[in-house]
Amino acid sequence: MSKPTSLNTQAVLSMKGSGYYSARTIGAKHAIESTLPLLAKAIENLPDLPVIKLADYGAADGGTSQYMWSELISNIRKTGNKKPIEILYTDLASNDFSTLFRTMQGMQGDSDYAYQTQHHDVFVHGCGTGFHQQLMASDTLALGFSATAMHYVSEKPCQISNHVHMVGANDGERAQFTKQAAADWERILLGRAAELASGGRFICMNFGIDEEGRYLGHTGGVTMFDRFNAHWAALRDDGTITADEYLRATFAQHYRTVDEFTAPFKNKNSAVSKAGLQLLSVTTRLTPCPFRVAYDNAPDDMTPAEFAASLIPTMRSWSETVFRTALEGRPETEVTAIVDKFYNAYEAEVASNPDGHAMDYIHIILEIEKA
Amino acid sequence: MSKPTSLNTQAVLSMKGSGYYSARTIGAKHAIESTLPLLAKAIENLPDLPVIKLADYGAADGGTSQYMWSELISNIRKTGNKKPIEILYTDLASNDFSTLFRTMQGMQGDSDYAYQTQHHDVFVHGCGTGFHQQLMASDTLALGFSATAMHYVSEKPCQISNHVHMVGANDGERAQFTKQAAADWERILLGRAAELASGGRFICMNFGIDEEGRYLGHTGGVTMFDRFNAHWAALRDDGTITADEYLRATFAQHYRTVDEFTAPFKNKNSAVSKAGLQLLSVTTRLTPCPFRVAYDNAPDDMTPAEFAASLIPTMRSWSETVFRTALEGRPETEVTAIVDKFYNAYEAEVASNPDGHAMDYIHIILEIEKA
Repeated sequence: MSKPTSLNTQAVLSMKGSGYYSARTIGAKHAIESTLPLLAKAIENLPDLPVIKLADYGAADGGTSQYMWSELISNIRKTGNKKPIEILYTDLASNDFSTLFRTMQGMQGDSDYAYQTQHHDVFVHGCGTGFHQQLMASDTLALGFSATAMHYVSEKPCQISNHVHMVGANDGERAQFTKQAAADWERILLGRAAELASGGRFICMNFGIDEEGRYLGHTGGVTMFDRFNAHWAALRDDGTITADEYLRATFAQHYRTVDEFTAPFKNKNSAVSKAGLQLLSVTTRLTPCPFRVAYDNAPDDMTPAEFAASLIPTMRSWSETVFRTALEGRPETEVTAIVDKFYNAYEAEVASNPDGHAMDYIHIILEIEKA
Repeated sequence: MSKPTSLNTQAVLSMKGSGYYSARTIGAKHAIESTLPLLAKAIENLPDLPVIKLADYGAADGGTSQYMWSELISNIRKTGNKKPIEILYTDLASNDFSTLFRTMQGMQGDSDYAYQTQHHDVFVHGCGTGFHQQLMASDTLALGFSATAMHYVSEKPCQISNHVHMVGANDGERAQFTKQAAADWERILLGRAAELASGGRFICMNFGIDEEGRYLGHTGGVTMFDRFNAHWAALRDDGTITADEYLRATFAQHYRTVDEFTAPFKNKNSAVSKAGLQLLSVTTRLTPCPFRVAYDNAPDDMTPAEFAASLIPTMRSWSETVFRTALEGRPETEVTAIVDKFYNAYEAEVASNPDGHAMDYIHIILEIEKA
């Protein structure tokens, strides 16, 4: 029930104890909280509308951003602003909205941040339509936010032949992903442009490629996606999976570069610029892998095998679906056995030599305002 | 994919073929559609606000009211009104919002009525907070609707000693349910009073007791709740369940009378009147049991056993949870065996003599406006 502390070994270790979910997402939570100053600045400059409309795009169960919204809403109320607040959490229709709604009412999760029950006139709504569309009435949104949700492409333009992710694709394949991601990004921004009131802001942090070419799990040490690819290819080479199953494990993701993120704003004739959006700032941020930090800070308390056993689950939590889907058509027990073998091989590699293994986050953070 | 037809044997029989859910809820759907004239009238008198806010309280998966909202939204657009429409579907946090969101986008169910995809500027949102609270910003709602959701009491004031439902409770127990239901009704109405814009309307239809004393499954023939009680008591008497398990099967429901529904409006000093709500009309309505109608219209095509096998599942669909909950603590297989025995006994009774068995709906329909 304590407030999140700054990133340190103790926090990580206690999170490990208090639940797989928290442990897996503590990195995401810290990354989100790094945007608090930008959001606080937006709160100080809210458009003058009768209702303060907030939105969290691609919010999943709302857990990782709950503390942040709780702080922001408290800040609004502390200034004496009593206007009604409506916050819209959006995600795909398949999202677990029940957990989200329970969490904000304090029926589940950390009730210290169940802000809906702590303030008057705070209303929590959900939306199960994808954020490539406009999701609320035009000119009503005061502040939109999105964390680590917009690296998914709306459709896979092709399979990647010799890798699992666009970061390892050949030039032709990469160009197709770049094109799809640019079209998606324009739709995402035009949706927000329509929703935002004049003076409203959209703060988003997304996985991407920074000025030094770094991206998730590729920050100077071993490259995570290359290891995914190597272990998946090994299963093809030893006959465990077919060549087609190897091919089908293509992440439906694109890590945009800073240039790709900012291009629509630099071109004053783009649809996005014409719709009134302007870029106030762009920054990139490395959030250290909390499992690596814990291991480096306490090498005497943790064996390489324990480190590996803490690191691989966080990678598995979001990547497993790609490999399972690639195996569609096989009996469930076979699928499970194959993906277990895959992650176990990666874990064994890390346990045998942990040097350089980590899943540092690289985020590109954009502060956007509607004129 | 065809438009709902008026209630007739063919519709019911084809619904039976096209899915248990549709068959179970066709009565509810017909009851809802009977309110279309009231809702159409409300649409003609919308408050003049920049956004047309609609709400459906206790909407479940939105299926039974989808055709109605689809018609109303089409009507709004046909008049040339292009204002953005935001519709908020509310239910408990545990509700299946994913099915609801998929349905309105045409990813599931009858895509003919996936109105979100058929019109510009129509936005579907959900809210997982109970409707005893205010659920959106004050003075923003144009039209609220609720079908068959407000007979649940927010908490059971007592168990009912010699029956399963308040309709069979003794005077002291019934008084406790009446008091709880009155307090709930006031909170429900005050929530809507806050949300509604001046000139906005709230149309609700609820299970209740009409001027002739009729209620769900009690319209002149055999009384459904009495048969629930008789079969549940028989399980106690033959030792299948304990006296405590008998007692715990108390529906957390109250069927308000017309007087109970209208009391807050008649008293000009009530909190509800002071909040600006006024009653435009109250009507009561019997919706014939579609399974009974089908049987009566086609006696040569349906045996009594087939009729019983069509009727009991619709009763079971919403009542089973009460009996299962009463058996909490027993192993799941035992619970299932006991509730199967219970409904099978009721079904055997109907099959042996179908006379008078039916689940006619009795609804009290209120047309409320905020001054």
